[in-house]
Amino acid sequence: MKAKTPSESRATSTHIVLPDDTNTLGNLMGGRLMYWMDVISAVAAHRHCGRVVVTASVNNISFNQPVGLGDFVTVEAKVSRAFGSSMEVFIEVWAEDHKTISKSKCNEAIFTFVAVDQVGNPIDVPELTPQSDIEKQRFDGALRRRQLSLILAGRMKPKDATELKAIFEDLSE
Amino acid sequence: MKAKTPSESRATSTHIVLPDDTNTLGNLMGGRLMYWMDVISAVAAHRHCGRVVVTASVNNISFNQPVGLGDFVTVEAKVSRAFGSSMEVFIEVWAEDHKTISKSKCNEAIFTFVAVDQVGNPIDVPELTPQSDIEKQRFDGALRRRQLSLILAGRMKPKDATELKAIFEDLSE
Amino acid sequence: MKAKTPSESRATSTHIVLPDDTNTLGNLMGGRLMYWMDVISAVAAHRHCGRVVVTASVNNISFNQPVGLGDFVTVEAKVSRAFGSSMEVFIEVWAEDHKTISKSKCNEAIFTFVAVDQVGNPIDVPELTPQSDIEKQRFDGALRRRQLSLILAGRMKPKDATELKAIFEDLSE
Amino acid sequence: MKAKTPSESRATSTHIVLPDDTNTLGNLMGGRLMYWMDVISAVAAHRHCGRVVVTASVNNISFNQPVGLGDFVTVEAKVSRAFGSSMEVFIEVWAEDHKTISKSKCNEAIFTFVAVDQVGNPIDVPELTPQSDIEKQRFDGALRRRQLSLILAGRMKPKDATELKAIFEDLSE
Amino acid sequence: MKAKTPSESRATSTHIVLPDDTNTLGNLMGGRLMYWMDVISAVAAHRHCGRVVVTASVNNISFNQPVGLGDFVTVEAKVSRAFGSSMEVFIEVWAEDHKTISKSKCNEAIFTFVAVDQVGNPIDVPELTPQSDIEKQRFDGALRRRQLSLILAGRMKPKDATELKAIFEDLSE
Amino acid sequence: MKAKTPSESRATSTHIVLPDDTNTLGNLMGGRLMYWMDVISAVAAHRHCGRVVVTASVNNISFNQPVGLGDFVTVEAKVSRAFGSSMEVFIEVWAEDHKTISKSKCNEAIFTFVAVDQVGNPIDVPELTPQSDIEKQRFDGALRRRQLSLILAGRMKPKDATELKAIFEDLSE
Repeated sequence: MKAKTPSESRATSTHIVLPDDTNTLGNLMGGRLMYWMDVISAVAAHRHCGRVVVTASVNNISFNQPVGLGDFVTVEAKVSRAFGSSMEVFIEVWAEDHKTISKSKCNEAIFTFVAVDQVGNPIDVPELTPQSDIEKQRFDGALRRRQLSLILAGRMKPKDATELKAIFEDLSE
Repeated sequence: MKAKTPSESRATSTHIVLPDDTNTLGNLMGGRLMYWMDVISAVAAHRHCGRVVVTASVNNISFNQPVGLGDFVTVEAKVSRAFGSSMEVFIEVWAEDHKTISKSKCNEAIFTFVAVDQVGNPIDVPELTPQSDIEKQRFDGALRRRQLSLILAGRMKPKDATELKAIFEDLSE
Repeated sequence: MKAKTPSESRATSTHIVLPDDTNTLGNLMGGRLMYWMDVISAVAAHRHCGRVVVTASVNNISFNQPVGLGDFVTVEAKVSRAFGSSMEVFIEVWAEDHKTISKSKCNEAIFTFVAVDQVGNPIDVPELTPQSDIEKQRFDGALRRRQLSLILAGRMKPKDATELKAIFEDLSE
Repeated sequence: MKAKTPSESRATSTHIVLPDDTNTLGNLMGGRLMYWMDVISAVAAHRHCGRVVVTASVNNISFNQPVGLGDFVTVEAKVSRAFGSSMEVFIEVWAEDHKTISKSKCNEAIFTFVAVDQVGNPIDVPELTPQSDIEKQRFDGALRRRQLSLILAGRMKPKDATELKAIFEDLSE
Repeated sequence: MKAKTPSESRATSTHIVLPDDTNTLGNLMGGRLMYWMDVISAVAAHRHCGRVVVTASVNNISFNQPVGLGDFVTVEAKVSRAFGSSMEVFIEVWAEDHKTISKSKCNEAIFTFVAVDQVGNPIDVPELTPQSDIEKQRFDGALRRRQLSLILAGRMKPKDATELKAIFEDLSE
Repeated sequence: MKAKTPSESRATSTHIVLPDDTNTLGNLMGGRLMYWMDVISAVAAHRHCGRVVVTASVNNISFNQPVGLGDFVTVEAKVSRAFGSSMEVFIEVWAEDHKTISKSKCNEAIFTFVAVDQVGNPIDVPELTPQSDIEKQRFDGALRRRQLSLILAGRMKPKDATELKAIFEDLSE
């Protein structure tokens, strides 16, 4: 399988925040945004591998900024690294205030998908070759995030997580 | 404000997986489940504090087991710890196969909510007093998760994260 | 087939009233609540018999109390009696005002489901053994309701409806 | 207020049964049909009185005939009698098989609505003058149904329910 | 195949404008109305031919009049002409203000459907015999609209569009 | 007001075709696609003018190619010309087969929006300066489409439609 670039998987979607997307304060509900993230990152993962993909896990998502009724939300997803049958997808979210038209980044999130065949067994996907500086940085971070996940799931011993060491060295000082 | 127990905030919801909830393999989409998680954990957080709550962040969620069309999904949420104006909510998900009626746990997730007043400013919430062993265990874990979040967000120095040290000591061996 | 208790079939769901659930006055629409009732009572009936179930009939439902936007609605269903292939399900609905957090019962309803095989033919279900006083009372009431339904449908002669006599004796005084 | 005829309130709606409207057998769910009934009977009640209306109660509904995916469902509602601030609405449902185009009646239901002012207090509605034989028959039946409701709710003594006597006389033979 | 009349295909649907149907001004969104138009005109086309129908094209639709939240919208569709496997459907839309109950026509639209077999190949449909004056007028107009479509799609030479000539003669004066 | 380019208004959205988006043949319904077109072209029009916009009219849309369940649909909209308070938006739609990942253009459509103030009165929008060849071609075509609309609506005399003459000259030969 030929390696692919992050741009080849890029997928975006723009939504208008409608009444049923909002909470009691009239702002976009976290649950709706996560649904939009899941759909568009599935498109990105599918574009990378051309196979059926299923959501495997979600890493930290922060909701820093309220988004109001009638505002526009753009969700953009790109594969940031591939490991065997799994793909890490990096998601960025921008909000446009419909009164001022000012646009600002309001969220980042990381989802992981697995490519499966028609009976649901995992199958390998193409490797990813990052191009830009930010893509390379996310590609490197993906390995550390994967090691942290494996440790937390009890499937890797901390001492084998070579990539994580640099970060957490001073924890045990 | 009088401290509350996790049981006082308990909220549950049972859903039938309908066609629009499923992906190309006919299984429940991750995005739909996250939407259900967000709603029911908002109810739990609201029951703890009696104020408007907004989703602040989502920690790791793993999707280990496919859930099929027509199956039942029960999502249960309880507040696991309170910190100032924020509440960590622990979510457990069970699936019931509609053919065999066997029930099994398919997901755990942790969401954090913040209580706000009508203009969206954070306001303090009651403390949480865990009762059962598992509630105490989650209460303790919440502090480590909070320190990890603060470090990753660059708002705490690793050496001050006393609770995290025990876990990551062997990382720098 | 081994008899079951009402508790074994118990199913509940909590919803936040969102904009599309409300009428022109900003209160929960009856039609949405009936949809929620139907889904959760189908879960209860399925838990009792482990077979596909279809809605057979709906008895009187009263809507006594308006439920506002942003409030929480909890729908709870338990099988109240089984007759051959049909199950009567008793539904109770509570509303929690999201400003005062006061909780009050706002509805009761009775739905009847039939268990069917994969081509839609009715199949027998386990009997129900009521436990608590209220469950016994509903179990007894179910027979009277069934006789009333059969009479109204012209499938039973009034004089054979022994359970109904006590109630309606004074109608012909 | 000038009395109105049932035809002046007539409201109809035709739906195509889509995937999310169906249960595990691929047939229209009872809960969806009740939602459609509620909306169209609210339109009929509103056309009768020109005021905001809220669902007050639902009488027996029977689901006799499965309706398949892709079939058309037509729901027709007409006010059948008015009592003070409340209106009884008679609903008939037809299904058209999308393969054979044969059309058959699959349900009848009776809903009651109350007209309210902007703060939710009941207000009187025009009287109804039935025209056709079937409308007169439903008009008469409405009184018996109302008496039965009041008795079951403990708000009328059976001996005062003069209209009901004829029907239930033989119950006490 | 026996020719049919426009009345035999007539289909109508009445909707209440709910919050999610509205734009930032609180008025019915064009996109929602087009969805309702598509469903009900598919029913009309299906009633004409008794076969699966797919949307082939949409002609001009004008949105002249805002329709508010809580208002009723009635969409009525009738086949206006049949050509081989395609059917032109004429759609009229009325809005009823829920405060004044005044009813006015707010839109007209023309959709074209094609009848297809189960693999999607076009199949012939019955001819249409217009009855009333307005139906005859639409029947005649359908031929001019068809010629205009064919010219714009480059599939007919303007000089062969005999029906269009009368209208556009003065264009080249 | 400073003139803007088409690129400044560009808006796109990618959707996965889910079960409720499909007709009886399992293909994307025209009505759903029109809803998606309306939302994303409203975003484009809003980006051009920064004001509330309402759908004014829809020109011909053709549905040439069935799009299957699970496929991806990308809708892209750009303002093609501005006239006073109205904006013509050009929409292109691509479908990606989820099995073959082949991508093809499946639709074009033209919507017109009007910018309004908070009480719904039309207000002027910036002019549009086309950049690329295709944008210039659409800019020119917009004038002819506008003249045709005005003539068909009886608001312009054919002899004044100078832009249309070239096209229809041979109609009257």
